[in-house]
Amino acid sequence: MAEHSGTGPGRTIPARATLGSVAARAGVSKQTVSNVINSPHMVREDTAAKVLAAIDELGYRPHRAAQQLRTRRSRVFALRVQNRFPDAVFDRFLHALTGAAGALDYRIMLYTADDDAGEITAYDELLDRWDIDGFVLTGTHPGDTRTAHLSRVGVPCVTFGRPWDDSGHHPWVDVDGAAGTRAATEHLVRQGHRRIGFLGWPDGSGVGGDRLSGWANAIRDAGLDLLPPSRAVNDAEQGRSAAAELIDRTHPTAIVCASDVLALGAISEITARGMNVGADVAVIGFDDTDISAVAGLSSLAQPLVDVAAHCARLLATLVENPSDSRPEQVLLEPQLVIRSSSAPVRR
Amino acid sequence: MAEHSGTGPGRTIPARATLGSVAARAGVSKQTVSNVINSPHMVREDTAAKVLAAIDELGYRPHRAAQQLRTRRSRVFALRVQNRFPDAVFDRFLHALTGAAGALDYRIMLYTADDDAGEITAYDELLDRWDIDGFVLTGTHPGDTRTAHLSRVGVPCVTFGRPWDDSGHHPWVDVDGAAGTRAATEHLVRQGHRRIGFLGWPDGSGVGGDRLSGWANAIRDAGLDLLPPSRAVNDAEQGRSAAAELIDRTHPTAIVCASDVLALGAISEITARGMNVGADVAVIGFDDTDISAVAGLSSLAQPLVDVAAHCARLLATLVENPSDSRPEQVLLEPQLVIRSSSAPVRR
Repeated sequence: MAEHSGTGPGRTIPARATLGSVAARAGVSKQTVSNVINSPHMVREDTAAKVLAAIDELGYRPHRAAQQLRTRRSRVFALRVQNRFPDAVFDRFLHALTGAAGALDYRIMLYTADDDAGEITAYDELLDRWDIDGFVLTGTHPGDTRTAHLSRVGVPCVTFGRPWDDSGHHPWVDVDGAAGTRAATEHLVRQGHRRIGFLGWPDGSGVGGDRLSGWANAIRDAGLDLLPPSRAVNDAEQGRSAAAELIDRTHPTAIVCASDVLALGAISEITARGMNVGADVAVIGFDDTDISAVAGLSSLAQPLVDVAAHCARLLATLVENPSDSRPEQVLLEPQLVIRSSSAPVRR
Repeated sequence: MAEHSGTGPGRTIPARATLGSVAARAGVSKQTVSNVINSPHMVREDTAAKVLAAIDELGYRPHRAAQQLRTRRSRVFALRVQNRFPDAVFDRFLHALTGAAGALDYRIMLYTADDDAGEITAYDELLDRWDIDGFVLTGTHPGDTRTAHLSRVGVPCVTFGRPWDDSGHHPWVDVDGAAGTRAATEHLVRQGHRRIGFLGWPDGSGVGGDRLSGWANAIRDAGLDLLPPSRAVNDAEQGRSAAAELIDRTHPTAIVCASDVLALGAISEITARGMNVGADVAVIGFDDTDISAVAGLSSLAQPLVDVAAHCARLLATLVENPSDSRPEQVLLEPQLVIRSSSAPVRR
């Protein structure tokens, strides 16, 4: 199994093809040859074909381990996991990211931290001890100092989540929450609903504000009354209380929710009042978690496989071509999954 | 911030405490000092106190990076993720394992593989390129060749899941599925049920057979009729068909299920027949996923935080003390979480 690559006595070293000889044969720069080997997605197909032909003709074998030593790359991205509560969206992203990074020959290393400050402390240790190539950050929020820190120390990062202030000029991938709640609201309008409320999170969350704005803009565009929204932290019981308050105050025939967890609270409240979810009050959630399918809840599915693929690609590009100075930013639309909870309005 | 530790001109090197001088001062072996530093949980408290006092007195500072070079340890465990479908139990284990490994100063590196053969191929690459200290395996099954492979190449591993044949003499941690379904069955007997069926997985799964046996033994011990079980793969629709068949054939007043997914199928079938879950037919699931809480499903919660802590501890022990030849094996009991789906039998 083991192929010895030492230079001990008795071994003859054949004339070896080099990056330079491959570049000369293909008529391209050494950087281009390196790109073909390390980040083929960055190279035009016809160029890549020329380089691969030259590699083949000259028998060039970039030994991977030697390559790592030369470039001082670990081919490892780090991702923080939160132990506080199960988060189906994060877990699906983590699985997809492991696959997407693997396809680009990177592995994912996990670490824990209690908060942003702890995360920043962890960066230094991870860089020092494991020579991490780059960081994938989640949970961006207004006042986030993490990306600025990584920028100062010159370490590549990508965030799943846009910067919610002017803190960062880094590549990011996000899901267009406003487009999602707009699609949900427009669906309900088409179902005949005219009193469509919103159950959201407390002020100050970028994601929450984004999801609220899509509903509000769709309501205005449809010329409907903008019912004052109710708010609760992301908990089914708190969501239920806020839904009760929303129903008593605004008498909606439909409720768009910032999350499946809040939607579950709304469903509990509607059911407890002896009303029928869907027929009496329609409900639409966000995230399309396992809960949605069980509860017959219409919801917005985040394209997490695509999010993860873009995150891996953007971070790999930044690691392999640090001079590429225009950080790419990708905004993806969620997809409305329609179930029984968003029935036509009862006439 | 940076404390230079080089030996350049102008630096005076104080007489340095060594592992040996600390051991001599504490009156213990060098191995014991090393254990206190690397695996304090393995050392008796009074011994650890003596060693820590000596470390303090002599100003001994085992530099972590130097220590890694010396021991050639990466302080990384690898874990395969499956991208095929969301699995709430695996995800909770993964989060808990990251925390538990972190507490012992190990990090988790994720990788993907399509099957066992792909996983075995991945071991070699992970060892070669990232110098992994040990592997955490999940999804053990009869005929599993993974642990035997790692044993042959002399790499430490621990499995979440017992070996279901005589393939492995390695440390493992598992949840006692039979104890769980026994507890579920005994709870139903106390609720007055006399016709208690079982909805399980097809033959050939070690976990499935284990969960079935707990139900069957509890039924026999209670002197009740052993109703022939129905079986389906782990899918709600398939579970629903199997539940329909079980109900038609054996007329149970309660059904113990091998998983929450199967239980969900049973709930769908019972509800579709216009019967009441709990009052007409009680249902108990396994895994206590998010689905359980939403569906009011009584279920068995796996102690995944404890499972992960034991996995991390056993693997760290094996890495740090390879001569410790008795592999420890830990079997933990799941806990029955009672909700509305397991109401007393209707008189």
